[in-house]
Amino acid sequence: MARPARRAGEFELIEAFVRALPTRGEGVLIGPGDDAALLQAPRAEQLVATVDAVVEGVHFDARFTPGDIGWKALAVNLSDLAAMGARPLWALVALGVPPGTPAARLSAIARGLGACARRHRLAVVGGNLTRASQLSLTVTVVGAVARGQALRRDGARVGDLVLVSGTLGDAALGLARGAATWLERRQRRPQPRLALGLGLRRLASAAIDVSDGLAQDLGHLCRASGVGATLRAADLPRSAAGRAAGARLADPWGPALRGGEDYELCVTVAPARLGAARRAAAKAGVALTVVGEIVPGRKVRVLGPDGRQRPAGRGHDHLRRALPPF
Amino acid sequence: MARPARRAGEFELIEAFVRALPTRGEGVLIGPGDDAALLQAPRAEQLVATVDAVVEGVHFDARFTPGDIGWKALAVNLSDLAAMGARPLWALVALGVPPGTPAARLSAIARGLGACARRHRLAVVGGNLTRASQLSLTVTVVGAVARGQALRRDGARVGDLVLVSGTLGDAALGLARGAATWLERRQRRPQPRLALGLGLRRLASAAIDVSDGLAQDLGHLCRASGVGATLRAADLPRSAAGRAAGARLADPWGPALRGGEDYELCVTVAPARLGAARRAAAKAGVALTVVGEIVPGRKVRVLGPDGRQRPAGRGHDHLRRALPPF
Repeated sequence: MARPARRAGEFELIEAFVRALPTRGEGVLIGPGDDAALLQAPRAEQLVATVDAVVEGVHFDARFTPGDIGWKALAVNLSDLAAMGARPLWALVALGVPPGTPAARLSAIARGLGACARRHRLAVVGGNLTRASQLSLTVTVVGAVARGQALRRDGARVGDLVLVSGTLGDAALGLARGAATWLERRQRRPQPRLALGLGLRRLASAAIDVSDGLAQDLGHLCRASGVGATLRAADLPRSAAGRAAGARLADPWGPALRGGEDYELCVTVAPARLGAARRAAAKAGVALTVVGEIVPGRKVRVLGPDGRQRPAGRGHDHLRRALPPF
Repeated sequence: MARPARRAGEFELIEAFVRALPTRGEGVLIGPGDDAALLQAPRAEQLVATVDAVVEGVHFDARFTPGDIGWKALAVNLSDLAAMGARPLWALVALGVPPGTPAARLSAIARGLGACARRHRLAVVGGNLTRASQLSLTVTVVGAVARGQALRRDGARVGDLVLVSGTLGDAALGLARGAATWLERRQRRPQPRLALGLGLRRLASAAIDVSDGLAQDLGHLCRASGVGATLRAADLPRSAAGRAAGARLADPWGPALRGGEDYELCVTVAPARLGAARRAAAKAGVALTVVGEIVPGRKVRVLGPDGRQRPAGRGHDHLRRALPPF
């Protein structure tokens, strides 16, 4: 193994990246520049922490602008916080950078990441930059949630309703060449449902974000809760653009059922709380649609539009996100 | 860009990795398996957070065992916590995994990482696994430090002594083909100086870990503090194996001055506190050697063994760690 010689401009790359980021915020005593960030956790809350990576050629390609890459790298993490009912506080960003990457490209990535960070009021408090053969961003996000109010995967009970936010299948359809601009934007600039997650604390019995496809992610929730679920394909919320693009497919509901990367929330709610959950969604400005019920058993079953039961299938085949989080 | 099909064994890879890790510990309410970890921060302390990556072909090669890779990926982060005077709490681990990587290799990496985690009593609370062309581990570590007691880079004052722990240059010399086993071990299994960092709180005026070479890292500390420093090459602590290997070089002090990855601590201490700092080091079981002084100005100068001043040089040329943290 050769020891790589120092390349001119490494500190410039870091400087270009950090300059575009918000580095101050709640609880930030020391941000980037020391051996580690020094932080004050909010007293009355618990912390929530998650990590996720986006890798060139796996999670994004040349059709993504640098700003899209930065936005998405942070947004996919914030979606995990939304699914816990948490608010974001801090992020740390580890970059893998191929030799010869121009500083302007890193700046543009940082502007996209910074835009997402400012939108959701979080501070980037540290990071790391290393040489690598593929461009990658690995983002760790820390958030806070009032004590005992975190949404979890393991609270779904038989008889609860299954609901999903927004529309499903858009991001998967946005991967196709020639996809409608709106669908492409759903793929490249996901909107984490943080306000909805906050609003559903103490209302939802369980929650998960839809990153790997509804059928698969609901399966994770059911496994954690020890229950099964029935979904009605005809009730899956689809956008106008998604319906138009899906109409050409052999299985028009496939993208909504198994397409990944929508970063919507899937939650379970006791029927008595449906009204309150709907009001919380209206306040957050996000649609929330009943798509099925929690049932005894272990399986996720899908009722087709013809009323016949069909296998839910696996979301993962259709995903570019190659491997799930642990 | 092709959408990678689901590969058999992805969940098995995650399972193989997580099984070897300690996932419970102080403040861990929910560990791996939900959308994010749920954590309770210690009430009376502040938090410290840092991220660092190790990448195949950049930070490790085929001479590293899988256990070495896992150990080092965590140890380099813990070294940053040591330099802040913090104790470790939690880690999140993002893996980049080339297709076809056997589960047994991931298990062996996890055992090395887990050994380091158990040694330092921290819990791995979450992670992520994604496909990538190079094997990489990106580790985020969160620790705690009593309020107001964190060691920082910016507290060095003119007249303070400059001290370093352990011995320097070993890890750089351990890269050479045919290096002594002990030097190789210093390269592959660095020992983060956590007990020393804890012991030096309220004694050291500033601290940094020696990851990029003493001259360069002391330069960072001086820049943050607005001071200069003088180092005496003849006083740099070197191991017997390091002295023997260095004797063959044109500049026998080069590895100790500019070699990276020793993960020792460099601290500044007011002369009145030298005795207390030495007692703290003895209690931590680590040597602590005076190697120079903080002086007015901005530069790090080195006095050669002949008493003549020479430029400190840059550590980075000699480093495999291609780019510094920010």
